[in-house]
Order: sequence, then structure tokens, then C-alpha cells
Amino acid sequence: MPPTVTITPGALARLLGGHPWVRRADVVRGPDAAGDIVRVSDGRRDGGTALWSERSRIALRLVAREAVAPNEIEALIDRRIGEAIDRRRAFVSSWDACRVVHGEADLLPGLFVDRYADVAVIQTAATAMDAREEAIAAIVARRLGARLVVARDDGAARDFEELPRRSGVLRGTGPTLVAWHDAGSAMETDVLTDGKTGGFLDQQENHARAASCVEGAPEALDAFTYHGGFALALARAGARVTALDESPVAIDRARKNATLNGVALTARCANAFDALRELEGEGKRFDLVVIDPPALAKRASALPAAERGYKELNLRALRLLRPNGVLITCSCSGRLTRDRFASVVEAAARDVGRPLQLVEQRGAGRDHPSLVGVPETEYLKCWILRALS
Amino acid sequence: MPPTVTITPGALARLLGGHPWVRRADVVRGPDAAGDIVRVSDGRRDGGTALWSERSRIALRLVAREAVAPNEIEALIDRRIGEAIDRRRAFVSSWDACRVVHGEADLLPGLFVDRYADVAVIQTAATAMDAREEAIAAIVARRLGARLVVARDDGAARDFEELPRRSGVLRGTGPTLVAWHDAGSAMETDVLTDGKTGGFLDQQENHARAASCVEGAPEALDAFTYHGGFALALARAGARVTALDESPVAIDRARKNATLNGVALTARCANAFDALRELEGEGKRFDLVVIDPPALAKRASALPAAERGYKELNLRALRLLRPNGVLITCSCSGRLTRDRFASVVEAAARDVGRPLQLVEQRGAGRDHPSLVGVPETEYLKCWILRALS
Repeated sequence: MPPTVTITPGALARLLGGHPWVRRADVVRGPDAAGDIVRVSDGRRDGGTALWSERSRIALRLVAREAVAPNEIEALIDRRIGEAIDRRRAFVSSWDACRVVHGEADLLPGLFVDRYADVAVIQTAATAMDAREEAIAAIVARRLGARLVVARDDGAARDFEELPRRSGVLRGTGPTLVAWHDAGSAMETDVLTDGKTGGFLDQQENHARAASCVEGAPEALDAFTYHGGFALALARAGARVTALDESPVAIDRARKNATLNGVALTARCANAFDALRELEGEGKRFDLVVIDPPALAKRASALPAAERGYKELNLRALRLLRPNGVLITCSCSGRLTRDRFASVVEAAARDVGRPLQLVEQRGAGRDHPSLVGVPETEYLKCWILRALS
Repeated sequence: MPPTVTITPGALARLLGGHPWVRRADVVRGPDAAGDIVRVSDGRRDGGTALWSERSRIALRLVAREAVAPNEIEALIDRRIGEAIDRRRAFVSSWDACRVVHGEADLLPGLFVDRYADVAVIQTAATAMDAREEAIAAIVARRLGARLVVARDDGAARDFEELPRRSGVLRGTGPTLVAWHDAGSAMETDVLTDGKTGGFLDQQENHARAASCVEGAPEALDAFTYHGGFALALARAGARVTALDESPVAIDRARKNATLNGVALTARCANAFDALRELEGEGKRFDLVVIDPPALAKRASALPAAERGYKELNLRALRLLRPNGVLITCSCSGRLTRDRFASVVEAAARDVGRPLQLVEQRGAGRDHPSLVGVPETEYLKCWILRALS
């Protein structure tokens, strides 16, 4: 039998109601024996099997409603990874590169697995998953036939668990520079050293959708291009694209990717806030602008400043748009809810004094689902707007 | 000079802030001369040019920030219809059938124009648009090259304006039965006698998206099929589909459309609430279920009952799903906001006790945009969910 953790009746009711997390403040008594796979109880009712963390604000993450012995947990993870792969295969627009496991939404809390062609990248954000990362790498290598499995445990999510930030090769050999396709664009990514797990897989479907907004040869601006995800999709569809990024490494990669795809890209190193202001001052105007900044609100305390930042970006982008021009505006800050994002966009439109069509409200791709009843698992907004004057 | 309508300073501030409507309660003094095209003022500041209605709860609908003389209004409508067409041509997935003018979001308040191949259907929901319907029909016929222009002024939206419900041919000749394509499915629709303007154009992109959820030959149920929009898209992708509708006329049309597309469809006349219960009792299970009911909350007072209805439908649909099965659930009630729709889905999932992935939150197609800052112009929800157990 696994150790038992006792929680408040209220927290147990939430667990049974479908929310898989228990905060530390709701833990009445920690594990009555050593172990990170525990039974959850309020002293009367059983709440299922959970991952235990000594340090995180999220003390417990439910993995199963039924009893699972600690020595059965790897078999459960194996089966769940298999199910997650089956769901993706039936559903994603591209199996070449996609998120294969998306944490809670695949009933694998604190585990994220991305696939880039024949390479897999693992991220863990729960102590019990972190402790089993070698075993998970073996499962992933077997189930995906990956030649290389890399750990990218160097993200801020680890800080909440007080897990050390690190990265490295878990299994396999060969280069960490991988060739893959993002919405049809050839990309090269170093999965060990580039941002996140290398690419921004959650935006792939939005890159494709942006391309479908291109008619003729519009002038487009991609203000935070990173490796060129939006810019290349637009250029391949016929747009004349200016792509900006503050990072010289990213701009180099974007330029190289443009060459790979045989398209021209005006890529330059620039801070988007400054560049948008300069372009406006120079009287430059565009038919399509993409605003896809990195998360401006990583902590709750940063939210007010982040909202000002998003508003500034959208306002400046709107000023650069020709009549009937298209604005594709994104936010990957989970803390900036959809409603607050709507307020930001509305405030920017009001300040610019242009009526604005909201053509489509998009989110992350289908390989990044959220879990119903767990708003914390939803984060990406990608809206397509059109200026009417 | 057009007549002037005086409104409260607060209402004028909202107008200037981007919301195009003024409620009757905010009108201080009606038009100081006869006419339905008026200047709006709070006695000090100018609020632009608006459509005036004697009877509607929405007394004024802004058409332009600048001054427009009454004899210039038809030229303005003509130009705006042209711009709306240009935006659609660059943007929609199918020009064969789409909404060409979508009211406020195309800066043409109270005017809706749908295109089905060589036929156009007009709906007016503002007195001043209604009064100009013949002229608008001429504009639409010219700009779309339509052989037939039909008025479908028989919807509930007219009641708010106390406009009579009516329908009929405005211009042109020939059959009102039209052949068109919905997400690639051949359809036949009588634009004069079938529901709404004949088809549900707002769901076309969602029909296509539903088809992309089909892998292999899953068993699918379309509980409110109408003319087979979802059912045909699924069947053409390989699904074995049972399609239900309460209306024998609709089921006949769905069967005929299935023949047109050369696909098999088990189409039968049934009330969805009853049928879902019966199918559950018979132990029948599906890989994919579509719930796309007619608006259950047409009036604010109907909202609580409507929420119970939506919950019941979703709960029963979830019970019919096999593990990893897909639920595509819709609501076209604008009064049921996205947040309340989320609550309904969450409550259904909780009652069934199945964790549920939220794969995608979709809305109406790109030809049915909303206007930023005007939440009343947003109405359709189409969510793709996946049962995880």
C-alpha cells in the first residue's frame, strides 16, 4: 500500500469534482510513510492516487481515481503515453512535429513530451515525474522510435517545485540540431540549446491559418519572429515579410530557415516596442502585422505591467495597419485570461479609434488541449482581427 | 442637413468609445424633423450619423462617425457592401456560399446578406435598412451578379423593431431551390422556405473541422442534423453516421443531400432529448457525437431553462461516448456567453465523472466576424472535446 496524505474535506470535494490539484494549504497531514506516489484521503473518503511534492505550492497532483501501487506507476505512465500518442495520431495536422504529452490534459501531470521528427524532448514539472525521467525517456524512445531523447528541464515551471534547472541528453546519440516542418515550413532547431523545447509547436496551426490570410503579395510585419514561424508561413504564401527579433541567435536561425525554404525575408535584430514606434514615425504601413511576444506576465505580480505592454504593442500594430489590414495578435501568458486579453485589444482599438472586426479567436493547436474545469491548463490566445478603416 | 437626435452624454461617450448602439432609454429627444437617417448629439458634442428606429429598444445604430446626408446613405451602403465583399473574397474558405454582409461587424447595422451560388438572401433588422431593401437588393444583385435576390425577413430579430415578418423574391427569376456546397458537401436548399436563410453558413468551417476528426470508420451521431451539415462532412470523411432531426422536412432534405454526395446516412426523424436517452438505454455507443441544437435561449427569460437543456444534451452525449471519443458541442444562443457555456460543459463532465480534454474552442466562420467591444455581435460556440476515460 502507498503512503496516505490527508487533506481537507473541501479539497477532497474539489478533487472528486474533477480538479486534479491540491494546494499545500489544504494538506492536513503529509505522507505517513516515505514515497512520492500516495493515496489521498480526508480521513473518511478516498480521493484516489496522486503525485506528492514536498515543496511545490501544488502539493498533490491526481493521477488516478483508483488505487495505484507505487510499483505500478511506471506501467500507468507507459499506458497513458501510448493513449496520448494514439489521440495525436488521429487528430493532429502534422505528426512530424507535435506535442505528444501535454501534462494534466493527458492525465500525466507535470510531464510534457514534444516530438521533432526523430527526436523527443521531455520536460518535467512535478517531483515524482522528475524522479522517473530516465524510465520515461525509455518509454518515449520505444513508443516514438526516437533516435534521441533530450531533457529540457530548464524552464521557470521547475522553480515552483524547487527543482533544479538543467538540460541534457537522456538517451541516444547524434546531433541535437533537428530538421522538421512547422506548418509546412522547413525548420532547423537545436533542441538542446534553443528556447523552450526548441520550437513553438503550440503555434503551428496558427502559422498555417495566418498563411490563409494572405491574398496577393501583401506587406507583412512579424514583430517577434523567433525562428520565423509566422514569417515563413506568410512568405511562402506570397507575402513580402519583415521579421524582427531582439535575439541575434534567433534572427540568424530565421534567416537560415528562410534560405531552407527558398523565400526572401527581411529579417533584422530589433526590439519590437522600439521598432513599431520607429516604423510608425517613418510612415511605413503594412497589410498584415503579427504580434506574438514571449510571455509578458510570468508571475502574477507582473500582470499589470504586462497588460500595459500588450496594449502598447497592439495599439502600435493597429497604427501600422492599412485600411482592411489584418492584425494577428497573441498572448501566451496564462495569467492574462481571455477576458483580460479582450479588454486589452478593445482598449487598443478604442485608443486608435478604428473599428475592428474580430474574425477568429484561436488558441493552441490540437496537440495542446486543456482539461475541462481546469482553467490553469489554458494559456495561448491567437486572435485574428481586421481594421475596418 | 439630416434631423438631429439628442442623447445623454453617457450614451454619447459610449458611441465615441466604439459601441455603435444607443438604447431608447438614453434618447433625450427624438428627431427634430422627419427622417430615419439622423445626426446624433448630446447637445454639445457630435456623435456621428445613425439609423433611427421609432420602435426598437435599440433606438440608434451608428453608421458613420462623420456627417452623411440622407440622400448619400445608399451610396455609403453600396460602398460598404463592396468592401465587405472584398474582405470575404480574400479570406473565406469558400466563396461559393458565405455570409457577405454581417451587420454591425461590416459597419452595416441591421443588414445581413448571404450568398448561395448565384442567389443572394437579404435580411434586415433595422427600420432604416428595411425601408431601403429594394435599393439594397439592386446593389447586391449588381455586386454579386446574383440571378435571384430573396428577402428572408421572417426571423425573430424583426420583432424587436416591431417590423412585420415576411419573405419573398425581391429581384430576378428562376427556382428558389439552390445547389451549393457546404464544406465540400453538395447541398440543396430552398432559400425561400427552409430555415434561417436556407443553410447554416456560420457552421461551414466547423463542418470541415469535424471531418478532420475522423480517422478510420468511426461510428458518429449527429443529433440535430437539419440538412446534414455535420453528418455529410463526417460521412464523406469515412464515418458511419446516424443523423437525427425532429423535422421530417429537414430529414428528407438530409437524405436527399446524402444521395447527392453518394454517401450512406442513417437519417431518422427523432427528438434529440428522447433519442439520446433511448440510445443510452439500448447500450449504443459512439466514437463521435455532434450536438448542434437550435438556439435554446432566444429570450433572456429562457436562459435558465436553456442552460438546463444544454447541460442535459451534453451529459447524455458524454454517456454515449466510447473512451477517447469526441464530442463536438455547439450553442448558437448569444445569451449563453462563452463563460456560461463553459460552465454547462464542465457541469456535464462532472456529473458523468469523465475527465474531458478541451481540444478546440471554435466560433462562427470567418465570414461571420464580430465587432471588437460589442459582445452582442458574438454568438456561436463550437467546441471540440475528447473524453479521456
